[in-house]
Amino acid sequence: MKRTRIAQVLASEDIGAKITVMGWVRTRRDSKGGFSFIEVNDGSSLSGIQIIADKKLPNYESEILKLQTGCSIKAVGTVVASPGKGQKVELQAEELEVLGWADPEVYPLQKKRHSFEFLRTIAHLRPRTNTFGAVARVRNAMSLAIHTFFQERGFIYLHTPIITGSDCEGAGEMFRVTAFDLDEVPQKEGKVDFEKDFFSTPANLTVSGQLEAEIYALSMGDVYTFGPTFRAENSNTSRHLAEFWMVEPEMAFCDLDGNVDLAEEFIKYIINDVLEKCEEDMAFFNRFIDKSVIETLEGVVSKEFERLTYTEAIEVLGKAKEQFEFPVDWGSDLQSEHERYLCEKVFKKPVVLVDYPTGIKPFYMKVNEDGKTVRAMDVLVPKIGEIIGGSQREDDYDTLLKRIKETGLNPDDYWWYLELRKFGSAPHAGFGLGFERLIQFVTGMSNIRDVIPFQRTPGNVSF
Amino acid sequence: MKRTRIAQVLASEDIGAKITVMGWVRTRRDSKGGFSFIEVNDGSSLSGIQIIADKKLPNYESEILKLQTGCSIKAVGTVVASPGKGQKVELQAEELEVLGWADPEVYPLQKKRHSFEFLRTIAHLRPRTNTFGAVARVRNAMSLAIHTFFQERGFIYLHTPIITGSDCEGAGEMFRVTAFDLDEVPQKEGKVDFEKDFFSTPANLTVSGQLEAEIYALSMGDVYTFGPTFRAENSNTSRHLAEFWMVEPEMAFCDLDGNVDLAEEFIKYIINDVLEKCEEDMAFFNRFIDKSVIETLEGVVSKEFERLTYTEAIEVLGKAKEQFEFPVDWGSDLQSEHERYLCEKVFKKPVVLVDYPTGIKPFYMKVNEDGKTVRAMDVLVPKIGEIIGGSQREDDYDTLLKRIKETGLNPDDYWWYLELRKFGSAPHAGFGLGFERLIQFVTGMSNIRDVIPFQRTPGNVSF
Repeated sequence: MKRTRIAQVLASEDIGAKITVMGWVRTRRDSKGGFSFIEVNDGSSLSGIQIIADKKLPNYESEILKLQTGCSIKAVGTVVASPGKGQKVELQAEELEVLGWADPEVYPLQKKRHSFEFLRTIAHLRPRTNTFGAVARVRNAMSLAIHTFFQERGFIYLHTPIITGSDCEGAGEMFRVTAFDLDEVPQKEGKVDFEKDFFSTPANLTVSGQLEAEIYALSMGDVYTFGPTFRAENSNTSRHLAEFWMVEPEMAFCDLDGNVDLAEEFIKYIINDVLEKCEEDMAFFNRFIDKSVIETLEGVVSKEFERLTYTEAIEVLGKAKEQFEFPVDWGSDLQSEHERYLCEKVFKKPVVLVDYPTGIKPFYMKVNEDGKTVRAMDVLVPKIGEIIGGSQREDDYDTLLKRIKETGLNPDDYWWYLELRKFGSAPHAGFGLGFERLIQFVTGMSNIRDVIPFQRTPGNVSF
Repeated sequence: MKRTRIAQVLASEDIGAKITVMGWVRTRRDSKGGFSFIEVNDGSSLSGIQIIADKKLPNYESEILKLQTGCSIKAVGTVVASPGKGQKVELQAEELEVLGWADPEVYPLQKKRHSFEFLRTIAHLRPRTNTFGAVARVRNAMSLAIHTFFQERGFIYLHTPIITGSDCEGAGEMFRVTAFDLDEVPQKEGKVDFEKDFFSTPANLTVSGQLEAEIYALSMGDVYTFGPTFRAENSNTSRHLAEFWMVEPEMAFCDLDGNVDLAEEFIKYIINDVLEKCEEDMAFFNRFIDKSVIETLEGVVSKEFERLTYTEAIEVLGKAKEQFEFPVDWGSDLQSEHERYLCEKVFKKPVVLVDYPTGIKPFYMKVNEDGKTVRAMDVLVPKIGEIIGGSQREDDYDTLLKRIKETGLNPDDYWWYLELRKFGSAPHAGFGLGFERLIQFVTGMSNIRDVIPFQRTPGNVSF
């Protein structure tokens, strides 16, 4: 079943070419002159193609005049110049076959605008809308750009495990994974008998591939992960998902400065790539979703990120005339309002904060010589706040062991992580980026549930 | 911390260049002339670089003469021509800094050959070996080739959900996912009270992204997934993992022939790409792991795959002089021995079987006009047997509904899957490929646990 993608037809403008197009009807208009204009979209681009169906077609009365939004069709015809505004070509149909009907009485997607809330309940049909088709194409382009960015720089793509025996990766609540029938969990001496479970021990869904990525960084040099991660947090917000995709580069022989450099280069690369490759979709977002999105992105790529320490940021915030909801104290975590204030009001560009207080960061971050701060970095962007978090990792065995104990963790659970510091340890660093947050930033979509194909949030596991 | 990757040093042969190299010591030999040869590897290639450290270096006695396998070092020096055989360049060190020691009394990786079984118990160190470094690089190259193949053809990369509310995707035993404390699972009327769980309903780990990929195919045209999938099957074999990565393309406006064409093109593309990009690593596998692996792969890419129906295959097998362990009857599934016999003895190349009996294939495959067979396809390769399974999907609403009921499934669980056949249905097809099986085929590695960074199998969830 050979077909030409509509994106290609529109791009090549190959007048006179005889082609076959297949896709879904968006609209049909009938002219009094005895022919119909059928707008068809096949997902390859935001724009569809206009098909002209003449009443001479044998099924004009019996089928074509009954075509409605959502029907799938096959049209064989010739590319002709379009007399109208907008697109330069259209398709003069010589044959039009209906592949699948869509009864307008029950088809949920009609010509009117639907709310995003409603569209989430029909996630099996929403990619047929302009907005969600554009999200899918941009998400695809960004995914590819992630791979291209790292591969061009000699990084190795690594698949870290999804099911983990660790319940203390230190990044939030975890989902449990079991092969038990929950109605009949085997017990032994009044407790769950995990020896009988699939892995003979409790298992969870990963919250981060970082610790395993460090293994490969300390063998292969530079690696990155790009895979799903999980949080069992009961957060019903526009910024949280229980299942989301994360990008985590990890570099041996790299310190915090190199880490910040890579993060800045990475964000700029992805944005430049999307602006170039998804021009039509980005123009759509800029027109219908967030009228400042392209301007914001162009600001990000054109300016050098501001770099300062957490301590300097606290000083800046302390002098601010702004009234914050949360207090600003050295030693406490910055809130989104503080992060956005720094980006939007003070520096008017992305900001990288480094050297956070030890007490508010995980055990694996390298302790600075002052003993009070760690080599952490957060990248903050306008409108979103933190988009990347990372650090140079503690590579000294004794310091790491001390930090693990201080944090109340069991060193036995980290035997292999500690051994990496015992056998050929090396300075290394990395960061994590929540992919959906970056898509939100790039598209301007306000709810994170709308930038992932199928949302997993409290109470939502459909499709 | 700027460094030059060893792969680049060896490739560029830039005599006279002053560079910094960082990596892990493999061996050290001391010459009587007062200098040492240190072989260093940084994971960028199978080959390491030889570093010449002269006794004039200030830390020659105190440190360099104590260097052992596994130590990490930084060497600044000049690229010089190598007088020896093998590599053309080596590094004359002007400065050599030890970054991390590795006590030979306790460091588990020594110069001798270790069994793969033993190396699985030190998965945090095994990527530092030749074999597992090569596996990591080949796995990376193959991952990238998957993306390149589909992106070049206009497919959209899709992230299908890992956590699913469906417990009947029809491809095997599923793991359960819960936020409950298994010691205190809430009950209601003697049963688990799933309303209190995170998703308010039972949830599982996906066994396939196919059903969701069909959603996007029927909106965007051509899509593919590449992500982790799960089986809670208690299989302790060299071919099964509880967590593995799967590639699943799904194409709208595509029939079984188009599907078979794509599968053949896909396999050949990946193999050609690896043979070209991982020449050194593939030569290593061919020498130390499986002496026929390159010949087998070259056979696959140079020959047209044999295509025949399941019924024809049964006839061929019925006439075979070979004594099979399992009987060959029309209507029963082929065993690995039959599949390998067809590829290795009869056709001496990959074989694609189509049109399998309805009874041994899932409900979603399109029923042929004979009513007895479905438009299934299996791609079989030498040594492995089935490597790809796929089908044209049932796109007729009534037939699909009937098949769901016949199979004993509840149509309500498939409401959205059925609706795809109600609203703009179209012929579509796709297939699934287990990524680790393909890596086994490409590398010749005999145990699937050795081609994934961290194995998840019964009793194994470490790292």
